[in-house]
Amino acid sequence: MRLTVQALGVLPDLAAGDDLVDLLLAAWPDGPLDGDVLVVSSKAVAKVEGRTLRADRDDVVAAETDREVARRGDLRVARTRHGLVLAAAGVDESNTAAGTVVALPLDPDASARGLRSELATRTGRNVAVVVTDTAGRPWRTGQTDIAIGVAGLEPLRDLAGEPDAWGRPLVVTAPAVADELAGSAGLVLAKAARTPGAVVSGLARLVLPPGEHGPGAAALVRP
Amino acid sequence: MRLTVQALGVLPDLAAGDDLVDLLLAAWPDGPLDGDVLVVSSKAVAKVEGRTLRADRDDVVAAETDREVARRGDLRVARTRHGLVLAAAGVDESNTAAGTVVALPLDPDASARGLRSELATRTGRNVAVVVTDTAGRPWRTGQTDIAIGVAGLEPLRDLAGEPDAWGRPLVVTAPAVADELAGSAGLVLAKAARTPGAVVSGLARLVLPPGEHGPGAAALVRP
Repeated sequence: MRLTVQALGVLPDLAAGDDLVDLLLAAWPDGPLDGDVLVVSSKAVAKVEGRTLRADRDDVVAAETDREVARRGDLRVARTRHGLVLAAAGVDESNTAAGTVVALPLDPDASARGLRSELATRTGRNVAVVVTDTAGRPWRTGQTDIAIGVAGLEPLRDLAGEPDAWGRPLVVTAPAVADELAGSAGLVLAKAARTPGAVVSGLARLVLPPGEHGPGAAALVRP
Repeated sequence: MRLTVQALGVLPDLAAGDDLVDLLLAAWPDGPLDGDVLVVSSKAVAKVEGRTLRADRDDVVAAETDREVARRGDLRVARTRHGLVLAAAGVDESNTAAGTVVALPLDPDASARGLRSELATRTGRNVAVVVTDTAGRPWRTGQTDIAIGVAGLEPLRDLAGEPDAWGRPLVVTAPAVADELAGSAGLVLAKAARTPGAVVSGLARLVLPPGEHGPGAAALVRP
């Protein structure tokens, strides 16, 4: 089995109301194929959805926080209304103009579904979409990209009950495929550049039939 | 930027003392190239290192546990002596013969360094090595593969102080590259098959010069 991960081209700065699908298609190496997975940063999605806010950062963090989980110095780790546990509740002031911050999309699963549907309409291709953000981990240093919005694939691959090579049921039952997709795209993205994401090809077996969106990244949130 | 991830071929069942490098080279599609990253499961490494134990599972879990972190029903989440937080302290009874369990390698960074060195000796190629295990996450459902041993690349890519596209220093400072590599390999592996890992090509910029191993996966453990 073989997959490829290819960075999208560089986009101009994004503003509310920009046609993101149009820009993504222009930045897509060779254009989309059936079974591709588009991995796109929440930053790009948030900007076109009008989530660039000219407001005090702390106020925005407070508004996005459902529950504070931890504090380390200036850093607040917060659970958002999406159920995501993120530094500064996912509010970011990098890669945006001075005096502004970018909050997460209000409903990243809906954003993913919208992008998937619009890509199908404009190109006829069956492409899954993963919207990503960058998250720290409680017991590990560094950050990885994770899936906060998903459409067109099962975010968890349920292996429960499948036998191992010795005929015993597998203990590890649900690889978080959408998070591994997000991480693989993170490997080809330069955080400082205006690359909005990447395309993963070769995993068509994971992509749901046209029009089926699956349960979304909401299924990745531990209740 | 573009990377490929390709599953290694299927291996026979592994036993203590098997020549893992020889078997990996036989299973390696097209053979290793300079700048490749070999991602290999801790299970394969542990088996050839004699970590298949015919012993009571609970006893092995207790012996591998440095500190119990959580309990959910039968599941114990434990911090191992490596500083890893894993279900059953990384002790696994899938993909091993009945009556046996497989514990983690004693020093996965040393295992990674050994594989990297031996690959260089036998092939003359400069290949980085990531040893992986599968881990749950406290706030998210499902599991992802993570790096527990690393040689030949910096497990964290330190971006601190680099400017974003608007000239402001990046807030996210250290992508956990080794974990994202582990996750990308997880996408091409069938958990139930005897595939020991995958090869990631196209990230030669991350691979250290021959003979340099870097700080290992130990750098991914939050102190």
